[in-house]
Amino acid sequence: MAAIKHLLIVNSSPEKIYSAITTKEGAANWWTEQTEIGNKVGDINIFDFGDRYHNEMKISKLIPNKQVEWECLEGDKEWIGTKLIFEIEEKDEGSVLKFTHGNWREETDFFASCNYHWGYYMRSLKIYCETGKGTPFQNE
Amino acid sequence: MAAIKHLLIVNSSPEKIYSAITTKEGAANWWTEQTEIGNKVGDINIFDFGDRYHNEMKISKLIPNKQVEWECLEGDKEWIGTKLIFEIEEKDEGSVLKFTHGNWREETDFFASCNYHWGYYMRSLKIYCETGKGTPFQNE
Repeated sequence: MAAIKHLLIVNSSPEKIYSAITTKEGAANWWTEQTEIGNKVGDINIFDFGDRYHNEMKISKLIPNKQVEWECLEGDKEWIGTKLIFEIEEKDEGSVLKFTHGNWREETDFFASCNYHWGYYMRSLKIYCETGKGTPFQNE
Repeated sequence: MAAIKHLLIVNSSPEKIYSAITTKEGAANWWTEQTEIGNKVGDINIFDFGDRYHNEMKISKLIPNKQVEWECLEGDKEWIGTKLIFEIEEKDEGSVLKFTHGNWREETDFFASCNYHWGYYMRSLKIYCETGKGTPFQNE
């Protein structure tokens, strides 16, 4: 199956990055303000993008300050069944974030468009963790 | 073989996008200021990034306002032999740009890091074509 993979340096602590991914305040600052986020495995996160996309993601793994996994239950038909994995590794000066959006059935044009947009939002996540101000969907 | 694929909307003409990819002035404004660019198939383009990377790309295809292909002859060892393809399609209001960096031997951490950075530079290319001001390496 196809996967989108991004790796980036974030000059911030693993705790800050983990919080940005697992809290409503965090996700609202780098991805979308229209967010509801649970706090345990099995909970359903909601990420809305105006009228364009409604995503429901089941939390399938939470390892504090190290790893977060979601499974997409609702969203664009190409996203349903895909997995989103965030892996955080502490480094001497900051952290490495590995993001994988896997289990795509095909590398379509939408896959390539999402890859481009993930680059944008990974940078938003980085800048939010480093400066306190990201560029979520509502500010794009 | 593995490939990085990005697809994005650029609110600009195919001519402007083609020029941004095939001229020194263009590439200097979205990718790197340390650039030499040829104007015919078989010419060698040079893209330097300070002391970090020295890339030599042979121009392997030029279809004005539609397609550009380069083959990497010198650069990071994982880049040598890879192909970079830019495809431009005119749309009602602007253009679609499809970028493929293909022929990678493996999906390594460097592949994922380059994918992240290509997202950044594709956005720089888009913003440069739309506003006249991109974010090349020297301004990152």
